[in-house]
Amino acid sequence: MSTTIGMDIGGTNVRGAIVAEDGTVVREEHRHTPRGFAALSDTILDVVADLRSGPPEVIAVGIGIAALVDFDGRVHFAPNLPGLVNVPLRDQLNEALDLPVVIDNDANVAAWGEAVYGAAAGVRDALLITLGTGIGGGIIAGGALYRGGHGFAAEIGHFTVEPDGPLCACGERGHWEAIASGTALGRMAREAAAAGAAPSILAAAGGHVDAITGYHVTGAVLAGEPDAQQLLDRYAVNVAIGLAGLANILDPTRIVVSGGLIDLGERLLDPVRHAFAGRIEGAALRPAPDIVAATLGDRAGMIGAAALARAER
Amino acid sequence: MSTTIGMDIGGTNVRGAIVAEDGTVVREEHRHTPRGFAALSDTILDVVADLRSGPPEVIAVGIGIAALVDFDGRVHFAPNLPGLVNVPLRDQLNEALDLPVVIDNDANVAAWGEAVYGAAAGVRDALLITLGTGIGGGIIAGGALYRGGHGFAAEIGHFTVEPDGPLCACGERGHWEAIASGTALGRMAREAAAAGAAPSILAAAGGHVDAITGYHVTGAVLAGEPDAQQLLDRYAVNVAIGLAGLANILDPTRIVVSGGLIDLGERLLDPVRHAFAGRIEGAALRPAPDIVAATLGDRAGMIGAAALARAER
Repeated sequence: MSTTIGMDIGGTNVRGAIVAEDGTVVREEHRHTPRGFAALSDTILDVVADLRSGPPEVIAVGIGIAALVDFDGRVHFAPNLPGLVNVPLRDQLNEALDLPVVIDNDANVAAWGEAVYGAAAGVRDALLITLGTGIGGGIIAGGALYRGGHGFAAEIGHFTVEPDGPLCACGERGHWEAIASGTALGRMAREAAAAGAAPSILAAAGGHVDAITGYHVTGAVLAGEPDAQQLLDRYAVNVAIGLAGLANILDPTRIVVSGGLIDLGERLLDPVRHAFAGRIEGAALRPAPDIVAATLGDRAGMIGAAALARAER
Repeated sequence: MSTTIGMDIGGTNVRGAIVAEDGTVVREEHRHTPRGFAALSDTILDVVADLRSGPPEVIAVGIGIAALVDFDGRVHFAPNLPGLVNVPLRDQLNEALDLPVVIDNDANVAAWGEAVYGAAAGVRDALLITLGTGIGGGIIAGGALYRGGHGFAAEIGHFTVEPDGPLCACGERGHWEAIASGTALGRMAREAAAAGAAPSILAAAGGHVDAITGYHVTGAVLAGEPDAQQLLDRYAVNVAIGLAGLANILDPTRIVVSGGLIDLGERLLDPVRHAFAGRIEGAALRPAPDIVAATLGDRAGMIGAAALARAER
């Protein structure tokens, strides 16, 4: 059995797994993400060494990283990974490893995982979005990962939907991410609670408005609290506004939603579908994409990175 | 010499041309666009017959039409072509013609024209936008026309940039088209003139605020009027906001601007580039697309449709 290693490198954790050809995770290793390029390279090599300390044989390493990565595996910009500015990550790892290394953006490889083994399997044109702290995404076009001219494509959280809207994590104002991420849901909840409109959420946060996060909303929704579902329905409109624009631009046949918020399942997807339906061009006169939940959970990145390494090594 | 016919079907005119393999227009025919599917089919066939009444030999017909067209050449939705709802245009024409017929969206074929013979020649990943009455566009991805899952992709004017913004021609509110088309420029000019801020534009419209259109702005800009250039600079920010979002999503290496407004040349592109530069993700830390003017003018649609017919017949 030949396997590949898939790694998912975020601002908090470096995760690696040996993944079989059928997408099964054979073994996993996790580390905290260190600061700086040299330390991160060492941590990646350390995880790879640990994973390779026993069978099965590994034939390539795929890496998804929360960064703008070009086709040469160079990291240009990684807002959550301090010290990684314009560094040749693939070259560095290639020198140290006797294995082919493939590197791409973390959201892209997660999308690829869902496209190969998950909710977008068999779908040639799909859009995958991750609703979490921010909004990530990946575009599957004609059965392949869409990467754009430099490798930077699918930064789908970063288009303006409200010129005077809230500040985005990237520094711009009113991006979709700033009104439709889990972070934005938390802000909406604090505003609602301050206005007396979210008693169950406020209670879940111990009565402290400033302590409210998106997690308190999802908890209250899952507990069946009407005020929380009402807030989620408003949030779902923000999600749908961005999705409709992306559907007009990209025309996917399926939209797959992942990230922490997808734990809400149909409680989230139902109002998203409702708000989305009328908003795409020619809505009543054309087939529209379906909107479904991702199936690989938080291993999508590792599994997708491993699949990409297998395909592109 | 084998040639193809390229046609551009809009709400006002049906235009057809015989185009040589090198992109040269050999002969052209124009008609007014009639109302209804049957009349439009007849007009198309009439133009094709006229073009074929002499040499050279024609081997295929390509059609760009202002509509959502699927891969079977079926028109689902055409806001400016009354009576064209869910009609099998390609089948209809195939029955009447002894030539292969290829049909796509008008903006897509115009983009393909620029990609093959114009400002995007040799560029594998490009975004082409048309700033006119509305905003059209086409996406070149990996050297091919990007069509999405149904054939509806690149409706790039239709994503929300201002939830409470002006009404879009499509019926939604605050789409990019509603704040960055030539029509939107006219509205901005009327607002500025009503506030006393656009004296040269008001004078060009005979002193009647309600008579002001985008054409008065472009005329005043070309005449060197500072108040008109100032207005155009504000409008350029609206253009850049949408372009930056599209660049984050699609990552083109070149953006080609066409449509009536490109007559302004650098007077438009300079402020667009300026407003665009800082707005893309990781702006200072990565290569960015260049922004240039289209070169085929209003024949891009016919030339591109002819090229598509040649490639796909």
